[in-house]
Amino acid sequence: MVIVMAPGATQDDIESVVEAVGAAGGEAFVSRGVNRTIIGLVGDVERFATLNLRAMPGVADAVRVSTPYKLVSRDNHPDRSTVTVQGVPIGPDTVTLIAGPCAVETPQQTLEAAEMAKAAGATLLRGGAFKPRTSPYAFQGLGEAGLRILADVREKTGLPIVTEVVDAHDVALVASYADMLQVGTRNAQNFALLQAVGAAGKPVMLKRGMTATIEEWLMAAEYIAQRGNLDIVLCERGIRTYETATRNTLDISAVPVVQRLSHLPVIIDPSHSGGRRDLVLPLSRAAIAVGADGVIIDVHPHPEQALCDGPQALVDGDLDELAQIMQEFPKLVSRTLTTSPSA
Amino acid sequence: MVIVMAPGATQDDIESVVEAVGAAGGEAFVSRGVNRTIIGLVGDVERFATLNLRAMPGVADAVRVSTPYKLVSRDNHPDRSTVTVQGVPIGPDTVTLIAGPCAVETPQQTLEAAEMAKAAGATLLRGGAFKPRTSPYAFQGLGEAGLRILADVREKTGLPIVTEVVDAHDVALVASYADMLQVGTRNAQNFALLQAVGAAGKPVMLKRGMTATIEEWLMAAEYIAQRGNLDIVLCERGIRTYETATRNTLDISAVPVVQRLSHLPVIIDPSHSGGRRDLVLPLSRAAIAVGADGVIIDVHPHPEQALCDGPQALVDGDLDELAQIMQEFPKLVSRTLTTSPSA
Amino acid sequence: MVIVMAPGATQDDIESVVEAVGAAGGEAFVSRGVNRTIIGLVGDVERFATLNLRAMPGVADAVRVSTPYKLVSRDNHPDRSTVTVQGVPIGPDTVTLIAGPCAVETPQQTLEAAEMAKAAGATLLRGGAFKPRTSPYAFQGLGEAGLRILADVREKTGLPIVTEVVDAHDVALVASYADMLQVGTRNAQNFALLQAVGAAGKPVMLKRGMTATIEEWLMAAEYIAQRGNLDIVLCERGIRTYETATRNTLDISAVPVVQRLSHLPVIIDPSHSGGRRDLVLPLSRAAIAVGADGVIIDVHPHPEQALCDGPQALVDGDLDELAQIMQEFPKLVSRTLTTSPSA
Amino acid sequence: MVIVMAPGATQDDIESVVEAVGAAGGEAFVSRGVNRTIIGLVGDVERFATLNLRAMPGVADAVRVSTPYKLVSRDNHPDRSTVTVQGVPIGPDTVTLIAGPCAVETPQQTLEAAEMAKAAGATLLRGGAFKPRTSPYAFQGLGEAGLRILADVREKTGLPIVTEVVDAHDVALVASYADMLQVGTRNAQNFALLQAVGAAGKPVMLKRGMTATIEEWLMAAEYIAQRGNLDIVLCERGIRTYETATRNTLDISAVPVVQRLSHLPVIIDPSHSGGRRDLVLPLSRAAIAVGADGVIIDVHPHPEQALCDGPQALVDGDLDELAQIMQEFPKLVSRTLTTSPSA
Repeated sequence: MVIVMAPGATQDDIESVVEAVGAAGGEAFVSRGVNRTIIGLVGDVERFATLNLRAMPGVADAVRVSTPYKLVSRDNHPDRSTVTVQGVPIGPDTVTLIAGPCAVETPQQTLEAAEMAKAAGATLLRGGAFKPRTSPYAFQGLGEAGLRILADVREKTGLPIVTEVVDAHDVALVASYADMLQVGTRNAQNFALLQAVGAAGKPVMLKRGMTATIEEWLMAAEYIAQRGNLDIVLCERGIRTYETATRNTLDISAVPVVQRLSHLPVIIDPSHSGGRRDLVLPLSRAAIAVGADGVIIDVHPHPEQALCDGPQALVDGDLDELAQIMQEFPKLVSRTLTTSPSA
Repeated sequence: MVIVMAPGATQDDIESVVEAVGAAGGEAFVSRGVNRTIIGLVGDVERFATLNLRAMPGVADAVRVSTPYKLVSRDNHPDRSTVTVQGVPIGPDTVTLIAGPCAVETPQQTLEAAEMAKAAGATLLRGGAFKPRTSPYAFQGLGEAGLRILADVREKTGLPIVTEVVDAHDVALVASYADMLQVGTRNAQNFALLQAVGAAGKPVMLKRGMTATIEEWLMAAEYIAQRGNLDIVLCERGIRTYETATRNTLDISAVPVVQRLSHLPVIIDPSHSGGRRDLVLPLSRAAIAVGADGVIIDVHPHPEQALCDGPQALVDGDLDELAQIMQEFPKLVSRTLTTSPSA
Repeated sequence: MVIVMAPGATQDDIESVVEAVGAAGGEAFVSRGVNRTIIGLVGDVERFATLNLRAMPGVADAVRVSTPYKLVSRDNHPDRSTVTVQGVPIGPDTVTLIAGPCAVETPQQTLEAAEMAKAAGATLLRGGAFKPRTSPYAFQGLGEAGLRILADVREKTGLPIVTEVVDAHDVALVASYADMLQVGTRNAQNFALLQAVGAAGKPVMLKRGMTATIEEWLMAAEYIAQRGNLDIVLCERGIRTYETATRNTLDISAVPVVQRLSHLPVIIDPSHSGGRRDLVLPLSRAAIAVGADGVIIDVHPHPEQALCDGPQALVDGDLDELAQIMQEFPKLVSRTLTTSPSA
Repeated sequence: MVIVMAPGATQDDIESVVEAVGAAGGEAFVSRGVNRTIIGLVGDVERFATLNLRAMPGVADAVRVSTPYKLVSRDNHPDRSTVTVQGVPIGPDTVTLIAGPCAVETPQQTLEAAEMAKAAGATLLRGGAFKPRTSPYAFQGLGEAGLRILADVREKTGLPIVTEVVDAHDVALVASYADMLQVGTRNAQNFALLQAVGAAGKPVMLKRGMTATIEEWLMAAEYIAQRGNLDIVLCERGIRTYETATRNTLDISAVPVVQRLSHLPVIIDPSHSGGRRDLVLPLSRAAIAVGADGVIIDVHPHPEQALCDGPQALVDGDLDELAQIMQEFPKLVSRTLTTSPSA
């Protein structure tokens, strides 16, 4: 942490900061400039944060220079991690395709979507049974009945299941069906939920909050990690900006940025970021090219009947092209497409 | 809802839309232009939303023209509402001051802050026992011990308590102490929590999500209202923008905008929006002047020791000016400062 | 400037930074922490900026801690300034009302709008002859004919003129008519224009770029000041955010923030920020209450016929309330409403 | 255009709208709903815009449903265009690499950068002689001396020149040296400049304003096109968002979105969007993969000495990888890397 003193700070002001830091077990190094004095602090930053140094007389600013996250940081864990979901790896050597319906609606629709996903190269099945919806009048998901459908489709297709949990107190229930728990964008700062999935003993896919900074996203992962679970896959899914041509703005640069800061795998969701079917394939190509560790895609056998996010789902006619992208692009970034462990 | 057809839409495309709408129990009115055809829909918009009309051939766009919220809308409830918390009104005729510490830390600190609040004209006491924090290493609040402190201070000062609840399953506990439940900015789309506070039988203060549109904010209120609770006070507390000089950007225009759309009272939090003590008094003046139904302010007897948000808390030396603002400004907008029911 | 070294930076890396700073005539103070080393620089920051210290081996970040603007900064000019336009002051002791039509359309419309403005308490007349428009198919203003109309109306009403200039090479022409030159939001980084108005010898109203940070806005003012013109009034007019309920989001906090950083006067434009007539009066009240040095407002005798921004113009029926606000609110912030010098 | 009437609109209100539209030579189709009436307008939208229909009694909203740009729209020009700069094509069948120094500093630096660019596969040379800088104290470019250096390097390397013009009145001078004129992000709404480059008879590269919507960007192109110049290449270079980890957020989705709306070529600038050298290669791969018609990249022989944007420039050690990307990725999207016409 660096303390920047105001131009008019007195010698007493400077000494007060030095004393406060010393009393908290830290050391303070003073650099006197022509207009300003800067004080570099060494010690426990969390401890310093409780001192409210910024509120002390003569202090203009307090700048944090170390990262506030530890367990998920690459500083302490230089090699990038691979998270394995029932034998399916997500990590630096592979590209993993996760696909399925946005929402589980019927057994038939879920099975057809899973077969579409598998045909395109998917090794994990996505599908929502609990849906967080902006409107209380919109379809909220089938709940446990949806989880049972997913489990049934897993048995038929061999695809492990990724599904969302929206409330801390549903974690045990969802974890009893799911192979990987998803925390959605609206819950990126639902700390009770983050802690509960951290304790659930299953891999977690953590979507970026639609307005989370990269640092806040990594802090959310830190909440999960702190409960002993480092099997976390980060998922960039678009951020809120002033542009309205797309539902959100895919922050594709976040992938290499996060890969430098954290050892956790990072995948991209090209379906939810744009909210438009015509963008899914171009953004999937870009995702692999930029170095994402996977993509997660909505597919639906009959999107015109979908109860949720139909306009963005890929359909049968798109699958050949998706399959071809999944075959050709990973090589170009020295990766291979993940295959099923049983295959 | 209005369906905008693409320039190249065929007669068949148009008829398909008309049929789909008819099959869903609605009516469709077709306006043929030189380049485009527009179809106006009459009927149940939620039903239409499930049709995925936007995904039909020849459809360029589907524009919603009615508001998606009902219970909180002023369309169906033209008079603005007053919410009463233990006899303290928040509504169109008054300005209500809510003040107190950001976080409950000790009995002494809470009592001193409550007395500061009361001296400045506050009739409700704010104070957090459960704190949602970006970092898992930051102070998370005292939990139930904090609630007991608040109850004790209420007894000593006569000020009813507003306090935050962060998890659906804590609602009963928090409601057993609180006079008004607060839903914080990070939980603005925690739908399980919104539904739980909707069923708790206590007035609710709903902070705007720091990246929520006004429509999303009102939809969050609709979740609460749908469970039978219309005692909701909306609180504008700043939104996330590109500007970094303030923690968030206070969207002061949101107050008159929301007051046109919804009958619910709207207050402003000048402490959290700016995150800077020097902005609190100017923004409080602006809040009353723009027509807010109240303000909620952080005060702290010793902000340099605060465990949370010390830099924004008002201190003893600010209270006279705050009290003066609360005395003088309400008259100018034809309101009176709320007084305690027992006073 | 503070240099933050990466965790793995070597002693050689640190020495290279120290040497580079020394070679540029500066001094470097090294603070060694457990994980990181911080180097505080003293000397000419502009010179340091050319060193690309951030690109040197082992450097993680370079943080600027002094303000990059000088002439407009309050650091070197502690008292807030008053800018005088033909005897009309804009500054810390007064509230100045500037009003008039968004665009000059006809002599009759301009005169009527000016009389409306004057009746409400305005002492300066706004009106655009050169209009920057997003669409090349929209009305672009009357040009010099519009300036002549303004000059004529000035003679009839006694109100000095504020009008926009959109191209560096029109500055001499516009300055030959105008009493104050306006630089609009779309030209906030048109540096050729800023320099030209800086050399024109007339007071300048500098609108904030609709996506400018406060620092960028002050840097734009610095471009004007550098040409010898310190008669600059800053005008907050709303920034671009994700919220679409208003055209832009009025950043009302920017007023007290800028008043701390710069000695220049700051006014608010409640008409363009919201783009809605129903917000103009509430936001005008808030502007005065927050401490703005003035407001600039669109009025139009027949807004339904306006060629530009009609929906936001105040009409006859609003003027009594505006006049009342201008009479009552300045007192509350220990100011007086500016009156005409001849009055 | 669609007019949405308020719930309480009267029959008279509706008829007034219909009459106003008829008087302006248009037709109005009325759709009466249970709660609201919708009126679809057919005719000249620009004409309707002057009617201020939104301000009429009983009108809740006026929604534009056709695009406001015409010449650059794909509606009227279905095939995507190719722009040719001295024989070098930029269009749908190729990927064109433009590279060079951010700023021209010396003949030696510019020549070395041009040779680096050429070695990596570039067929056009970028380099700034006129630099728009946020600070008046920063290096502003060499002006005409820089243009002469560029012309000299063009002669030595055979690479046509792309260079920025920042003021309408410099257009003739810059055009006398340049093969393609660049309009930078800060001038995206400098309409005088847009019109001047539209009349200059040279191809134009139009960078997206850092806070421009896609529609505003296309309207800026329309200003150029309206003066008779359709040789416009659009360049996405990142938009301003709340995220601070990168200088701007590359809006990669804008490429396929714009390619649907407009026939103009679209390229990506991965250097300025991120402002970080380590992001340039991953984003270049993503740019080609998403379907961009080219990329424009900063290279510098000695970035640690660069007077402008050194931290983002590629260096010698990066060139082999860049060259390899340019060789391998275009094939995957059924394109070829552009080669020099003389090669």
